[in-house]
Amino acid sequence: MSFAPSVMSESFPLDQVSERLKGLLITGSGEIDRVMDYLLQGDGKMLRPRLVYAIASMQEHNEEVVRDIAAALEMIHMASLVHDDIIDGADTRRNQPSLNCRYGNQISVLCGDYLFAAAFNLINLHNLSGVMADVTGTIQTMCSGEIKQMTSLYNLQISETEYYERIFSKTACLFACCCRSAAQAVKMPGETIRALSQYGLCLGFAYQIIDDVLDFVADSKVLGKPAANDLSTGNLTLPVILALQDEQAGERLRMLLQDHSGIRENMAEIMDILVETRALRESLATSRFFVQSARGALDDIPTGEGRDVLVGLSHYLLDGYYAQLSDVNDWREGTGTAN
Amino acid sequence: MSFAPSVMSESFPLDQVSERLKGLLITGSGEIDRVMDYLLQGDGKMLRPRLVYAIASMQEHNEEVVRDIAAALEMIHMASLVHDDIIDGADTRRNQPSLNCRYGNQISVLCGDYLFAAAFNLINLHNLSGVMADVTGTIQTMCSGEIKQMTSLYNLQISETEYYERIFSKTACLFACCCRSAAQAVKMPGETIRALSQYGLCLGFAYQIIDDVLDFVADSKVLGKPAANDLSTGNLTLPVILALQDEQAGERLRMLLQDHSGIRENMAEIMDILVETRALRESLATSRFFVQSARGALDDIPTGEGRDVLVGLSHYLLDGYYAQLSDVNDWREGTGTAN
Repeated sequence: MSFAPSVMSESFPLDQVSERLKGLLITGSGEIDRVMDYLLQGDGKMLRPRLVYAIASMQEHNEEVVRDIAAALEMIHMASLVHDDIIDGADTRRNQPSLNCRYGNQISVLCGDYLFAAAFNLINLHNLSGVMADVTGTIQTMCSGEIKQMTSLYNLQISETEYYERIFSKTACLFACCCRSAAQAVKMPGETIRALSQYGLCLGFAYQIIDDVLDFVADSKVLGKPAANDLSTGNLTLPVILALQDEQAGERLRMLLQDHSGIRENMAEIMDILVETRALRESLATSRFFVQSARGALDDIPTGEGRDVLVGLSHYLLDGYYAQLSDVNDWREGTGTAN
Repeated sequence: MSFAPSVMSESFPLDQVSERLKGLLITGSGEIDRVMDYLLQGDGKMLRPRLVYAIASMQEHNEEVVRDIAAALEMIHMASLVHDDIIDGADTRRNQPSLNCRYGNQISVLCGDYLFAAAFNLINLHNLSGVMADVTGTIQTMCSGEIKQMTSLYNLQISETEYYERIFSKTACLFACCCRSAAQAVKMPGETIRALSQYGLCLGFAYQIIDDVLDFVADSKVLGKPAANDLSTGNLTLPVILALQDEQAGERLRMLLQDHSGIRENMAEIMDILVETRALRESLATSRFFVQSARGALDDIPTGEGRDVLVGLSHYLLDGYYAQLSDVNDWREGTGTAN
């Protein structure tokens, strides 16, 4: 998926960041180079580097520091994707076979470790101790959150609060960390750092909720994985949690979900329940609420190109994602908000 | 395996390091705590923390910094073991079922990442930028070396040089890094850091060669894994590389190794070849050479308890490992060096 130029700032130096990543990861030693080269061919959105550049642009800054923070955070994101794909047994990532699918789990484990180490090495290069503490702590949060999620698969008792905790550690905490890291690196005052962190947090929540909704309603071709993959593998997301709260349909849904191996087979009926109970629409409304909150967090940030990009990114989440929905998804009919 | 008090310094504060590890890794959040607790129960030798303390003891130092460098390096070692066990599909580690065996590969991937992040967080706490650069660079070396190894399994053309490259990245580079990190952290002069790094490097080479020899000759009970596990999984180590160089037996060995799936079945004959060609004894002699070199690297280090511990550790490698050999291993007969 690429960004519409109208939404995204043209000033993001994609080439500079890509070149830096290449320079750091392709070092001339045969075997790992080939794997890293494959990984870099994936069509990443570079959302985290974009956040870093947008925030850094609000203030005078050292170009190299900003480029390296952006590259480091993208490497950390790449590392976590590579390891997540092992964990999920995913076949596809960024429109190509996933690294574990192409090279096996063993090489993927090592590549993820390599990327983490390269990222920390890069942050350390600029003596940004505060950023290092933030990033390492965030990774610990992500790992322990994911372990918690794995021990609660197929848990039909999961509450909305537990869901938010989960997507905090899965997605939102790294978005917030990217914003704080950029703001810290260019030495913004504490309250600006906090506001931008809040923006990142809300953006991350919105992003993950939309992702969870799309898992049900987007074309599997667009997703690059089977539709409703989350639910089939026991990961109960917001639409399901909301539908389970429905007095009548909730009971029926609970029964359908208790038979783990039958979930994929019963998907048509499950989808009907998610539409009938308005669980998908409510989930989307919740993501819209977080997008609004993200924008709200920018209220005291001075206007300018950087702020415009951050607002643009939050727009992109909703608008860009609507564009991914298949025309035949009738659950959208009547919502009046599509596109 | 425990250390004989006569060989090892009594002044190593095992409890302090263990407590610090517990404090850092058991944080009161249910799921990951349970996994970390399991991991900490493993009976680790704490070789890397011992190196750090021995070196730090040579000079005035901040106790907390030294304890944290020691704990961080142990966490990095733990992380690499956890990920290695996934890669090797190992069932046992430190006399208990390996983490992947007990909790599955998925949780093991995350635990390794958590340990890496916790280690970097800890190093960063003391603003030791030089140590951070060294440790992250070392991890990159370890990962790329292991990827290289994986792409050369069952390669009967492997040279001795390639073997040394491999065990450099597998073991020796982290030993050297531990020595440099401790020396850097307590601000030793450059030439002392270099000498200690050289000591660590030689110690690491010796350690890995002995480990590779033991893989053939120690009891599987002592090893905690099937004997000759390396060879069966395509990892050709020094004894095999040396035996392959033998004019007559080498050809026979090559034939036996070409049938990958028959290696375990043909192990008795392979062992005969390793004994006949004196490949096991030559390998052990090589490890002894590296132990001597490690001691030689300490020539200009002032005498004292710290230096004694480093010398003791190199003794331990040979003496302690001899003690692990089964009495019935007749390849040792006539070497005149056992115990």
